[in-house]
Amino acid sequence: MNHKKEEVLSWIDHAKQEGTILLQQFVREPSTQMNEAGIQSLVAKKLDSLGFSVDVWEPGGEELTKHQAFISPRESFTGSPNVVGVKKGNGNGRSLVLNGHVDVVPEGDPRDWDMDPYSGEVKDGRVYGRGATDMKGGNVAMLLAIESLVRCKIELDGDLVFHSVIEEESGGAGTLAAILKGYTADAALIPEPTNMKIFPKQQGSMWFRLLVKGKAAHGGTRYAGVCAIEKAAFVLKEIRKLEKNRNDRINDPLYKDIPIPIPINVGVIEGGDWPSSVVDLVKIEGRYGISPEESVEQAQAEFETYLRLLSEKDEWFKDHPIEIEWFGARWLPGAVHEEHGLLKSLKKEFEYVTGRQAKVEASPWGTDGGLLTNIGHTPSVVFGPGVTQMAHFSNEYIEVDRVLECAKVIALTIMDWCNQPKED
Amino acid sequence: MNHKKEEVLSWIDHAKQEGTILLQQFVREPSTQMNEAGIQSLVAKKLDSLGFSVDVWEPGGEELTKHQAFISPRESFTGSPNVVGVKKGNGNGRSLVLNGHVDVVPEGDPRDWDMDPYSGEVKDGRVYGRGATDMKGGNVAMLLAIESLVRCKIELDGDLVFHSVIEEESGGAGTLAAILKGYTADAALIPEPTNMKIFPKQQGSMWFRLLVKGKAAHGGTRYAGVCAIEKAAFVLKEIRKLEKNRNDRINDPLYKDIPIPIPINVGVIEGGDWPSSVVDLVKIEGRYGISPEESVEQAQAEFETYLRLLSEKDEWFKDHPIEIEWFGARWLPGAVHEEHGLLKSLKKEFEYVTGRQAKVEASPWGTDGGLLTNIGHTPSVVFGPGVTQMAHFSNEYIEVDRVLECAKVIALTIMDWCNQPKED
Repeated sequence: MNHKKEEVLSWIDHAKQEGTILLQQFVREPSTQMNEAGIQSLVAKKLDSLGFSVDVWEPGGEELTKHQAFISPRESFTGSPNVVGVKKGNGNGRSLVLNGHVDVVPEGDPRDWDMDPYSGEVKDGRVYGRGATDMKGGNVAMLLAIESLVRCKIELDGDLVFHSVIEEESGGAGTLAAILKGYTADAALIPEPTNMKIFPKQQGSMWFRLLVKGKAAHGGTRYAGVCAIEKAAFVLKEIRKLEKNRNDRINDPLYKDIPIPIPINVGVIEGGDWPSSVVDLVKIEGRYGISPEESVEQAQAEFETYLRLLSEKDEWFKDHPIEIEWFGARWLPGAVHEEHGLLKSLKKEFEYVTGRQAKVEASPWGTDGGLLTNIGHTPSVVFGPGVTQMAHFSNEYIEVDRVLECAKVIALTIMDWCNQPKED
Repeated sequence: MNHKKEEVLSWIDHAKQEGTILLQQFVREPSTQMNEAGIQSLVAKKLDSLGFSVDVWEPGGEELTKHQAFISPRESFTGSPNVVGVKKGNGNGRSLVLNGHVDVVPEGDPRDWDMDPYSGEVKDGRVYGRGATDMKGGNVAMLLAIESLVRCKIELDGDLVFHSVIEEESGGAGTLAAILKGYTADAALIPEPTNMKIFPKQQGSMWFRLLVKGKAAHGGTRYAGVCAIEKAAFVLKEIRKLEKNRNDRINDPLYKDIPIPIPINVGVIEGGDWPSSVVDLVKIEGRYGISPEESVEQAQAEFETYLRLLSEKDEWFKDHPIEIEWFGARWLPGAVHEEHGLLKSLKKEFEYVTGRQAKVEASPWGTDGGLLTNIGHTPSVVFGPGVTQMAHFSNEYIEVDRVLECAKVIALTIMDWCNQPKED
């Protein structure tokens, strides 16, 4: 067996150039929301060449859009296909979903980038560009892992189900569509950027929109108005206190190295349309972290109550309550128990490949693992080569060597997991 | 003489219905920037009917656009005419500019209005709508005053020069164009909303734009980024301190009843484009008040230095300095000395009409009076029927009785001023 393992690892070592080129191709596809068709066609071709039977479809239909876990900022997925490839095993082995999303967040202010955000430039062993770390590097690691097994003629008892999904960055409609089409398995592996740490628990999160009111006035007599920006600044400060309260309650050791396990992030602010007027309305949009130990409903209620009670700290809010709307995106939290077989396989093979002890933590962000675990009954573990601190940043990059190392761990984990008999 | 005065006042009393209808017509023209042609055609027709020779032109040309006092957010004034009407006196009397702007600020959030913002609805003796108080009510007061003199066949020695200008709300390019065309006089009266107080001094102001930098990150690990909104909130707090410093220096008794003589108003905030990302750039736009006792350059330098020194309070700004740009609009401050003849006429006639002592203050906002006084050598006094607290507000309105009262004071002031011999 170790001989076979070594053959696989050696194949991956020799595939560095091929892997780099594939990653560059992926990064050069600017697959922001609505623009995923190009990269999906590359993935479909690759899966087909590896002997997978490939299903390409644009998600839709009432089963999806009326599902209680469905959430999406858009009306239609036309032009934004999902891709799933299935490779049947010899039978009776444990099946595995390999899940990766192809959508990327917008590139932000182009002046903050040292290069074209979709250049796929290679420098000092890194591939640069939006999505390199989140999570096209992870997708390439999975594809290299599968290719190594194919090239080294490794037989598997269990099925492999490859999800190449859209819409992870705004709530997981792509993964939900794959689940509803029956593409589930005994477990799932998701190579989101964990910096090679293993995350059996994932933070959930959802998007909120706040409307904070002021009172308009001429700027020359601004004292006659109430500045909605100043009220919003107060609300933001209070949100920091709520964030602290919520995080102080978390004592799971998996979170011990994470400064803020369930952050509340404010990502958009907008107010006013005339420099000489006092602003009468500010819109704030953000992301609210949800712990694996609480329900979405509990978490929402805590935020809503907190905002309502701000009228006790500032009378203004009594007659001008802050409006809150939950919109756009939501990622369910997820958790896999400590003794889960996939977790064991991953830890073992990580140590085999790297010679280091695996680091197990809880993820500071939501992934589609929440949907797979809770809705698809497919316990999910997150483990990937990217670095969280690079995700959504300017000058995003990934180390090619990390992609190869991750591919090795995934390849051996597949061999270990899929060749174990199914549990009853 | 008093007999003539009483005849004029009585004519105005009987013109209430006519004045109300004219004001409604004005308000129903939604004369935001670029949309001034409709109301200007009404004004031109009215001036023509009162025996003025009327000049209608679209401002432009290098003499205007290269002038050191020129400032405007737009490239061209096509479709936005200025109107000036001149009525020659019998000779040797003092001439008077009557200056009013027809542009209005945008109506803001329509949900804050109880009616269509351009309805011109009459209720409880008030005309409602954007621009009613700032300053279409003032314009109607001037036109009623002139009409009363015409109808009562009052002879004037000095010339009347009626400015119906565009662009006051964004820096005075309309009035500057009128000045450069030679439409100046021995003094000017501007019925901006002073709530029937007399303002011989006007605050200047200019627009600024700040760019405050943060550092992007994934919202799930927001501690790895730097939130530009939080930095902007700090900057806004510091701006309040600068505002206090600047206002603490003002000891002119004309400002004693004004809570903030030269405010710094923030009217626009914008940052971020994704709820799950840490915001890396916030744009702030606002209006910076300038005292009649300081130069524009001094005032600018104080703000710029203050922002630069924020790096001593927060190291972040050392490597990420706040960018400042002065853009769009600027109103020069203006002052007329205490013994000016127009000021005396106005006070005297105010007391004659109302039986109350005139209240003299400094204006909390800029007007085109700064340009008329400093560039047009036409000392300007501001006195009008509107209420500052209504200007730029939702549900803006003006009291019809105030418009009539103001028309009376203006009519008698014209009779007094224009029939005094020119000073050498």
